[in-house]
Amino acid sequence: MENFIYHNPVRIVFGKGSIAELARLVPPRLKILMTYGGGSIRKNGVYDQVKAALKGRKLLEFGGIEPNPEYETLMKAVQLARAKKIGFLLAVGGGSVLDGTKFIASAIPFKGEPWDIVDREVPVRKAVPLGCVLTLPATGSEMNPFAVISRRGVGDKRPFSSPAVFPRFSILDPETTYSLPPRQVSNGIVDAWVHVMEQYMTYPVGAVLQDRQAEALWLALREVGPRALAEPRNYEARASLMWCATQALNQLIGVGVPQDWATHMIGHQVTAEYGLDHGRTLAAIAPALLRHQRARKRAKLLQYADRVWGLREGPEEDRIEGAIRETEEFFRSVGVPTRLRDYGVGPEAPARIAAKFERRGEKLGEYGDLGPKEIREILEAAL
Amino acid sequence: MENFIYHNPVRIVFGKGSIAELARLVPPRLKILMTYGGGSIRKNGVYDQVKAALKGRKLLEFGGIEPNPEYETLMKAVQLARAKKIGFLLAVGGGSVLDGTKFIASAIPFKGEPWDIVDREVPVRKAVPLGCVLTLPATGSEMNPFAVISRRGVGDKRPFSSPAVFPRFSILDPETTYSLPPRQVSNGIVDAWVHVMEQYMTYPVGAVLQDRQAEALWLALREVGPRALAEPRNYEARASLMWCATQALNQLIGVGVPQDWATHMIGHQVTAEYGLDHGRTLAAIAPALLRHQRARKRAKLLQYADRVWGLREGPEEDRIEGAIRETEEFFRSVGVPTRLRDYGVGPEAPARIAAKFERRGEKLGEYGDLGPKEIREILEAAL
Repeated sequence: MENFIYHNPVRIVFGKGSIAELARLVPPRLKILMTYGGGSIRKNGVYDQVKAALKGRKLLEFGGIEPNPEYETLMKAVQLARAKKIGFLLAVGGGSVLDGTKFIASAIPFKGEPWDIVDREVPVRKAVPLGCVLTLPATGSEMNPFAVISRRGVGDKRPFSSPAVFPRFSILDPETTYSLPPRQVSNGIVDAWVHVMEQYMTYPVGAVLQDRQAEALWLALREVGPRALAEPRNYEARASLMWCATQALNQLIGVGVPQDWATHMIGHQVTAEYGLDHGRTLAAIAPALLRHQRARKRAKLLQYADRVWGLREGPEEDRIEGAIRETEEFFRSVGVPTRLRDYGVGPEAPARIAAKFERRGEKLGEYGDLGPKEIREILEAAL
Repeated sequence: MENFIYHNPVRIVFGKGSIAELARLVPPRLKILMTYGGGSIRKNGVYDQVKAALKGRKLLEFGGIEPNPEYETLMKAVQLARAKKIGFLLAVGGGSVLDGTKFIASAIPFKGEPWDIVDREVPVRKAVPLGCVLTLPATGSEMNPFAVISRRGVGDKRPFSSPAVFPRFSILDPETTYSLPPRQVSNGIVDAWVHVMEQYMTYPVGAVLQDRQAEALWLALREVGPRALAEPRNYEARASLMWCATQALNQLIGVGVPQDWATHMIGHQVTAEYGLDHGRTLAAIAPALLRHQRARKRAKLLQYADRVWGLREGPEEDRIEGAIRETEEFFRSVGVPTRLRDYGVGPEAPARIAAKFERRGEKLGEYGDLGPKEIREILEAAL
């Protein structure tokens, strides 16, 4: 096991009716900016619950944060927050609203051009405090210090990270997810699944517990994902799915182990160039990447085949291929196609995406050696 | 799943060589009181590492905190700390030193008789900040807000809990455990195992992930516990065991589920009356309690039999008994006997311990209805 530091100060407030806790959770006296997306929270009652819980508080609003939150949009919120002297940000929505709000929180006190936080990895030392009412289980942003921001003008979608953007609290009420479109639930299941994969599917370092904890997440997702989709108002299924998505990327299973993240980095670029939903890029790229890297990920692939899919007999190559096929079949079973061509991505994509990484000089994977050639091969296999 | 709040702000600094991080972790300028136990840290080099890391800081010492930390001893540290205006407590040792230090931290600013914190459950609103260098994987105290304090004069051993006593940081260097006596390692394995059991072995509430996470801990403990014992200087085994013990009681697997804790509460009383090591009380009481409560814990016992012990065939009663026997056999395999008579506890014990609970009017278990009669029956079966 590698040395590690684990520190996750997010307060999770979980369960039905917990939005009412907002009054107690948001620090008093601060002027609040509530951020949200396209307005689904107005239809499903979440907006009204938040307003009721914060009645009498100084509360401004900023709606319209889009999926894959856009730099230009977020900078409008930054200007508003600076002008109005906002002291607390409350993100109400899914991972995009939350990621966007983490960027807003960082950009408000930032000296210089905030895009540098993402593009030049300038460290974020301070941020306006933020909290969250989560309405979509998927990204884990509610319990981590990560965010991914897009800038369509330059065709970029890039992550940043800072302990300063850990939410002070995150409210997770599974009932807020009842009205989600099935597509968003499906994407979330795949996203959580691949988050686990990025932290597990590398090479063994004797991290016995982290491996078991990762497998625990997969076994739970296999059980509750399809049930949550089939029965949108099944509280137990929705609650377990929500908690799985949070735990899949709250840094716990990733402590002391090597991590990959190539699927995500390639996927972000596919989203930036072609507009695919994040989860859908992962469903196509992850299996292709596993096949491409099967030799180097061999030991972990065999363990995954055994413990998650029960594949313990026959030649090792068959077990590995079997586990990758089971993974694809699982993604399709929750309604997410596993080929880029299913989404209309054309044969020019691999070269185009690879060129982007070439220009940046960015290499990927747990060995940091997947370059444009490998990225292109993986994308070709994912077409 | 039940509603829950999860908030664990402890910073874990894990790995070989991490004691050197102390200089950065202990807040500057505060006068530090370093607490420890019987002096093993002087033999294994930990004392020297701590002193070296904190060279130049105002550092006082208080040694001699005994296993099952004693109120009278701890109050001496409280007097010292008050007199010397200590601003930070650094516990160096295992769960007893850490639990004792949590009590010291709470008692220093406490108005009134500090024993009331334990005996009358007076809430601890503030405490002197504390950190920890852990040298014994067992209790999980390094990442939780719990402590258990003994007062031999009145034959008591009682827990208390407060968010104010979360360690600010805990340093976990697996190499500090190389020189532990096998008995302490064995006890720690059993303690961690039963911590998981107290949070799992109740009745199902649809907490799919928490169940899997608990099982992950057991599967990991089964693998690394015996290896850590057989090979004291196997870094990977010692590291995984240490991380398992922390995760077994950092509140994560217990969120949103009913909890039992009867084995612990009865065990504490056995320790208070007969002086048995904590882990050894658990090894005897847990199997007896599972058999006594098998009807009410049936669904979870069957799941445990299946997922932890691979017992999936034959009559359900046989699978349940098989799983309990496997558990006992595991405890014995790591060197911990599973009968109270193995430790010289006599036939008078059940009535004597039960009377203690009767006097307190305290009832136990996930239904809160195990009274003196049931406690006596369980202890008789554990003899």
